[in-house]
Amino acid sequence: MPGDGRFLKACRRQPVDTTPVWIMRQAGRYLPQYRATRSRAGDFLTLCKTPDLACEVTLQPVQILKVDAAILFSDILIPVEAMGADLVFTEGEGPKLSSVRTRQEAGRLHVPDPRLETGFVMDAVKLIRRELDPMVPLIGFSGAPFTLASYLVEGGGSKSFRHTLAWMYGDPEGFTALLDMLAETVIAYCSAQVEAGVQALQLFDTWAGVLSRRLYREFALPSTRKVVQALKHLGVPIILYVNGSAPFLEETAASGVDVLSVDWRLSLAESWERTRGAVALQGNLDPMVLYGGPAVIEREAGRVLAEAPLQGHIFNLGHGILPDTPVEAAQHLVEAVHRLGRKEI
Amino acid sequence: MPGDGRFLKACRRQPVDTTPVWIMRQAGRYLPQYRATRSRAGDFLTLCKTPDLACEVTLQPVQILKVDAAILFSDILIPVEAMGADLVFTEGEGPKLSSVRTRQEAGRLHVPDPRLETGFVMDAVKLIRRELDPMVPLIGFSGAPFTLASYLVEGGGSKSFRHTLAWMYGDPEGFTALLDMLAETVIAYCSAQVEAGVQALQLFDTWAGVLSRRLYREFALPSTRKVVQALKHLGVPIILYVNGSAPFLEETAASGVDVLSVDWRLSLAESWERTRGAVALQGNLDPMVLYGGPAVIEREAGRVLAEAPLQGHIFNLGHGILPDTPVEAAQHLVEAVHRLGRKEI
Repeated sequence: MPGDGRFLKACRRQPVDTTPVWIMRQAGRYLPQYRATRSRAGDFLTLCKTPDLACEVTLQPVQILKVDAAILFSDILIPVEAMGADLVFTEGEGPKLSSVRTRQEAGRLHVPDPRLETGFVMDAVKLIRRELDPMVPLIGFSGAPFTLASYLVEGGGSKSFRHTLAWMYGDPEGFTALLDMLAETVIAYCSAQVEAGVQALQLFDTWAGVLSRRLYREFALPSTRKVVQALKHLGVPIILYVNGSAPFLEETAASGVDVLSVDWRLSLAESWERTRGAVALQGNLDPMVLYGGPAVIEREAGRVLAEAPLQGHIFNLGHGILPDTPVEAAQHLVEAVHRLGRKEI
Repeated sequence: MPGDGRFLKACRRQPVDTTPVWIMRQAGRYLPQYRATRSRAGDFLTLCKTPDLACEVTLQPVQILKVDAAILFSDILIPVEAMGADLVFTEGEGPKLSSVRTRQEAGRLHVPDPRLETGFVMDAVKLIRRELDPMVPLIGFSGAPFTLASYLVEGGGSKSFRHTLAWMYGDPEGFTALLDMLAETVIAYCSAQVEAGVQALQLFDTWAGVLSRRLYREFALPSTRKVVQALKHLGVPIILYVNGSAPFLEETAASGVDVLSVDWRLSLAESWERTRGAVALQGNLDPMVLYGGPAVIEREAGRVLAEAPLQGHIFNLGHGILPDTPVEAAQHLVEAVHRLGRKEI
């Protein structure tokens, strides 16, 4: 049963033999095997929407890196497309969406039925669960409502998030209605993933770091909490990742999640202190350490482990692994964490 | 004397009649008058290097917005170019520099004599000081050593700062030597600006928010402190701006500056508490508020004022004003701050 492994134990702050580790974006472009599958798929969305290809890339890092968990390969914008937004990926430019900037435009979206409208995701989960070592847990994921809203409102990625913030300041009720619809979407989407076979869920609120503490409290936190409350009864651990959570770390912990995945800016010791040990912590090696060679990787991984709580730590990067990271660096990291993180129990 | 105005008083945490205000990038593309001067100059670097054009755009916002301080118009990379790095601006792409990624490459740079090698900046300061209302203080500026180093190492702007961080992790002594040379450069450059006639200095450590608290302490803070210590005797207030300073706000205050210019993520009340009232605060309206129309601007400016310390607050944005901001919004903001910030003394 995947329930017995060190990843799930650490999510529940139970004792483990050694620190579990996985890597955000571990199924990604830094792996030659990923690039080969991706090139067979043709384009990125086809890779996401073809269950056996999505399964293939999900499994690759488990075999190549020996990580303690697999994470479903998909794109954060898949449920948003299913809501009725047009989604296009152009090489080197990132995603483009039909933008939603008014209540009226939001009114044209719907809460999709995840089994019908994103059935390929659930098929991928089922297939991965069949193909994956039964001892290795599979993490499902979704964007958190605020981050999905920001993609929708900006019509893609953004540096300034100007349209999203203008809407939040100018029409808080309208923006909250959009967040509510996204929360419902995320709840249904994550529930279907659990039903299809994932053992944990990670919510990515990647862009919430653009918010002031006040706006996080007023918008992002209530919508995240709604999602977490609705998913709690499914019994799988829920992880929340926010890049740049230092201004409102206490609030992210108050969302009710089991695990906070934190970036590299604050030490795990300080994060643990600020969240009073109420959640497990995932992270938080600076991804740039992987360019430093074996000695730097050992030193910095050791430092993260030294600052981590004894129970309730899942090792990860503080942000996704970059496409030009050497594969050997990622392999070395996983090996080093398992070696250096060994507990005497 | 410009020393009598409310801006300088607030920098020294003395009582003022009403809250002083200026806007980061107030001399910028959102002003039609700036665009006209810029187009006469031809390219951006010519605008920076022609004292009467730099003077013209420096004065524009004082007249148009009625702000309480002017800030020298220049580019953060001017002293870096004078160190020996090739600098090119391409339309819509931002600056490109010849990158410096090794001790050997850094060894080819030199600490420039600011009067000889950036004489056009000092000429601009003298000219502005002659043309500007004597009651309006002029702020000089420089990048802080870490931010200048990151531009040099990346060869321009960056999203990941991967080469900078790889150098910091892999060869801390070599990177520190580069920071030392940059600190010397900044000290000489700022001293020359004071000699030429500025009444205050702002150090921009714009990119330091990418650093962990530990790396900020180890690299950015000591080099900033070195600069501040060397400039203290000049008797002008020193302001430090870091975008994303929440993880290490206490350390930015420990740099010895008189004023911290903070982004919008933490309230001024929380920033004041964390820095124990040891420094004046500048900021911190989210620039996106300026897209919200008059009622939103009034409400949010009022909120910033309500959270500000009674003495020792200079109103500003938490980041530079964006190029498509309506001029009337900026005008309204300045008027509203002066009206709502009135003190009973």
